[in-house]
Amino acid sequence: MTTLPPAEIGSPFRNIDTPALIVDLDAFERNLETMAAAADRLGVRLRPHAKTHKSPIIASKQIARGAVGVCCQKVAEAEVLVAGGVTDVLVSNEVVGPFKLERLASLARHARISVCVDHVDNVGQLAAAAERARSRIEVLVEIDVGGRRCGVEPGMPALALARAIAASKALTFGGLQAYYGAAQHMRTPAERREAIAAATAATADTIRCLAEDGFNCRTVGGAGTGTFEHEGASRVWNELQAGSYIFMDTDYAKNVPDGDKAAHPFEHALFVLATVMGRSSEMRAVLDAGHKALSNDSGFPTVWGRPEVNYHRPSDEHGVIELGATSWRPVLGEKILLIPGHCDPTVNLYDWYVGVRGFGTPEARVETLWPVAARGAVT
Amino acid sequence: MTTLPPAEIGSPFRNIDTPALIVDLDAFERNLETMAAAADRLGVRLRPHAKTHKSPIIASKQIARGAVGVCCQKVAEAEVLVAGGVTDVLVSNEVVGPFKLERLASLARHARISVCVDHVDNVGQLAAAAERARSRIEVLVEIDVGGRRCGVEPGMPALALARAIAASKALTFGGLQAYYGAAQHMRTPAERREAIAAATAATADTIRCLAEDGFNCRTVGGAGTGTFEHEGASRVWNELQAGSYIFMDTDYAKNVPDGDKAAHPFEHALFVLATVMGRSSEMRAVLDAGHKALSNDSGFPTVWGRPEVNYHRPSDEHGVIELGATSWRPVLGEKILLIPGHCDPTVNLYDWYVGVRGFGTPEARVETLWPVAARGAVT
Repeated sequence: MTTLPPAEIGSPFRNIDTPALIVDLDAFERNLETMAAAADRLGVRLRPHAKTHKSPIIASKQIARGAVGVCCQKVAEAEVLVAGGVTDVLVSNEVVGPFKLERLASLARHARISVCVDHVDNVGQLAAAAERARSRIEVLVEIDVGGRRCGVEPGMPALALARAIAASKALTFGGLQAYYGAAQHMRTPAERREAIAAATAATADTIRCLAEDGFNCRTVGGAGTGTFEHEGASRVWNELQAGSYIFMDTDYAKNVPDGDKAAHPFEHALFVLATVMGRSSEMRAVLDAGHKALSNDSGFPTVWGRPEVNYHRPSDEHGVIELGATSWRPVLGEKILLIPGHCDPTVNLYDWYVGVRGFGTPEARVETLWPVAARGAVT
Repeated sequence: MTTLPPAEIGSPFRNIDTPALIVDLDAFERNLETMAAAADRLGVRLRPHAKTHKSPIIASKQIARGAVGVCCQKVAEAEVLVAGGVTDVLVSNEVVGPFKLERLASLARHARISVCVDHVDNVGQLAAAAERARSRIEVLVEIDVGGRRCGVEPGMPALALARAIAASKALTFGGLQAYYGAAQHMRTPAERREAIAAATAATADTIRCLAEDGFNCRTVGGAGTGTFEHEGASRVWNELQAGSYIFMDTDYAKNVPDGDKAAHPFEHALFVLATVMGRSSEMRAVLDAGHKALSNDSGFPTVWGRPEVNYHRPSDEHGVIELGATSWRPVLGEKILLIPGHCDPTVNLYDWYVGVRGFGTPEARVETLWPVAARGAVT
């Protein structure tokens, strides 16, 4: 079920077959540096989210630039990351079910593993699994700071879970997980600032509540690419979990930048290369990339370098560009770069990153092929 | 990049890990029989679409029940099907680009391969590739019968392409591809009947136009799960290309059945099994299946056996069920069956089908694990 790579290392850009998942290596490396510098400046730890890239080699590049480890959402992702050499992984999610708990506890014998809880029954199951595996797992209590998804209410409910964790010899209470996912995609700086201000108050209150009972939070984790400046400056969070910053996407580009900045600090570094495979109508170009090549859950991709045209009407294997608003008439076989609407689930459709050096220049070449090693790792 | 299967053959249903792609083998086999009988009754050939299942073993089951071969959309899919033993594959799509054409022409030395065209330049490229590979490819002219995607206008433009095909020694003119994708999902029988009536007139007209010039259409292919009764009864099409009928999905279930029938002829046979991994709120259950486990492009999944609740607010790894409209209170760890919104791109997210015998009974067991062998085969 692993497909052949769509290119060979060393080959010119024009020889990449399509659809292909392209990384502009120069932009990607600048994004890595920018976030590492931001975490330094803010005085917080960086633990980037590997749910975005699903790749141990990308994780290793983040760690080489100062990240303390990575986080991910699934046990199967954590297994692939640890097998690829990552030694510190937080599953920033609840792990429920006997098979998954057994795998997580076994993995904790081979790396520093932490995980989140939001239910007292789950604390007991986790403790039993860790005891059976003779491993030790660090546990963060997840609080709901606005996402209405996982997490207990801030304050006393978090304290009850901390006590349950502390009652187990195989578990260590590690602190709080306080991630506000919906705030990442609020469009104006004021909305994002306000949302994180409310989350800050709730999180600080919970930390106080825990401290009064003698619980110290080694880690207060959260934040994403849309809001990390706020959590980072709050003096409440000490670990940032941004993921998408390495690639950016069309959805994040719709956020109005914070403060007086004209542009986002991060560049588009991830593209889907597509071919014009239909020109049977003068007013339409059909691309060979549809739902199976692009995740359209957060909106359609934009066409790189052609802001006047729109990708629309995707079906499973096709997308359509209407040419009414442009004099551009792509020829049959022409290759087009698309910026995905949503990077994480788009990456999950591919087996290979095609890493390109000199992207956008006539000398552009395939420098590397990286496996999307945890693609499909949903369990 | 191939994940471990979420279950073992022989294990009881309750031991399947989640998210997992489940096939109810009994319903699936009834769907196979129902469509085979329909093609017999209509007096047309059946060439089911393998873009739905991406699996040589499922193709072989269709062929064992009388299908003449299968179709698919991508060269990479055709390669996997041929490698899995299928000897007759139509790529019901245009193939553009030198690498793909070379692969298609090479594949034609190992199986009966046909493909569609809608551009005269592509005919020349295809002929050159087949000549280089010393292979023979059968070519259908695709006409646009309403999809506004690929295909030339019906009538004379199709004749021009037929002449170009006939001018090449390596190509054989095979007939017409006339598929109306959007008609499959029109909700009322009257809309679908009207759409296919218009497509029938355009296709019949093109056949006449070709016949006047001496071109005989061995194949007139098209139709899908939503409209096949109309194409099948038209005496214009002679090859049905339905795909989704084997599994069905929430989107197809929204079609009002044809004629005076109360129900669709096909049953839901494909499910995503998910776990309740969040019950931190009394009024909400969080599932471990989001965008990476379900393709939500045609609407969200429905909850099997619980029509009163809705799956909504999916994020990459989570989905939410609000419990306000029900007295049902699922416990943490409870497993839930979802009917995907759209079967084809959901299948493409998984490496394994978990085939269950006795689905829905206490004796339900994993009978088979089938690889989604052409998962991710986008080139």
